Amino acid sequence: MVRENDIRENEVAVDTPEPVDARLTYIGRISTPWTSRLTCPRQERLDGPTCRIEVFEPWTQTLKGIEEFERLEVIYWLDRSRRDLVLQSPGNNGAVLGTFSIRSPVRPNPIGTSNVQLESVDGNVLAVRGLDCLDGTPLLDLKPDRNLFKPIAPPQPGDFETGDAHMVVRHCQKK
Amino acid sequence: MVRENDIRENEVAVDTPEPVDARLTYIGRISTPWTSRLTCPRQERLDGPTCRIEVFEPWTQTLKGIEEFERLEVIYWLDRSRRDLVLQSPGNNGAVLGTFSIRSPVRPNPIGTSNVQLESVDGNVLAVRGLDCLDGTPLLDLKPDRNLFKPIAPPQPGDFETGDAHMVVRHCQKK
Repeated sequence: MVRENDIRENEVAVDTPEPVDARLTYIGRISTPWTSRLTCPRQERLDGPTCRIEVFEPWTQTLKGIEEFERLEVIYWLDRSRRDLVLQSPGNNGAVLGTFSIRSPVRPNPIGTSNVQLESVDGNVLAVRGLDCLDGTPLLDLKPDRNLFKPIAPPQPGDFETGDAHMVVRHCQKK
Repeated sequence: MVRENDIRENEVAVDTPEPVDARLTYIGRISTPWTSRLTCPRQERLDGPTCRIEVFEPWTQTLKGIEEFERLEVIYWLDRSRRDLVLQSPGNNGAVLGTFSIRSPVRPNPIGTSNVQLESVDGNVLAVRGLDCLDGTPLLDLKPDRNLFKPIAPPQPGDFETGDAHMVVRHCQKK
């Protein structure tokens, strides 16, 4: 079962400090067809099976207006992942890559992201396609797809900064 | 300073449980030109100013191979955000939307994501364009852009499941 939690040839684990810098709340739960890391899709597909995202109280009001977006960004906690591998061998062949060069669920902070197709909203439950996580995965956040969302707040100085333009802007403001 | 941390007309805050479900480690730090939420870009742009991402020890080996990817997904902790608003009024005009219908930094789990252009790698420091977060923001994770990354691990059953196909697959396996 080396694919599940063991370490493969040339992989490197490090002693990591206790994770104490910030704390998360599970605000919902994701239901998918997959109960083992060995059967999950390696990568999500928008024509994949319909999955279910349930949002818990007291956060259900956060969903107001979400049905306007065809696609969402889903952020979740890969709660069954080890966190200490810095070099990994996804091919299990002795060749290793840094954890930040692959999209493995094993990460120092095991946060998963998916861009999904929103199929329906029924109260506090969303039906979506495009997930690849395990059944029961804790939900951390939902956002409208960045390409579909237009900011509503009034414009801010940073909106107009390109290249090293901010230096110029700051200089002008000082005058 | 209503834009900074106060509540606007018709916004709704809820009593939330203590965040105790999982714990994060700050694995690096992001440097940007912006020191106040009032000057940040509302949304990232790939032609924006070059920003700097420093990865701390013992995680620097995680960067091995990252220079192969022109674009990265950056995940960070919006450490100066309140977490209790479920309805927000980004226009400050009495009209409210659920937190999950907007990309505000104020969220139950204040996790930010950006797709950035990788400009250079110098040891444990990356130069990137396309961030919109505050200077000093803690880093949580880096991943190759999902559109540039091809899974290296051997194929798994879930890779081939579309629509409700997984039901059929499971049925076949039982025979």
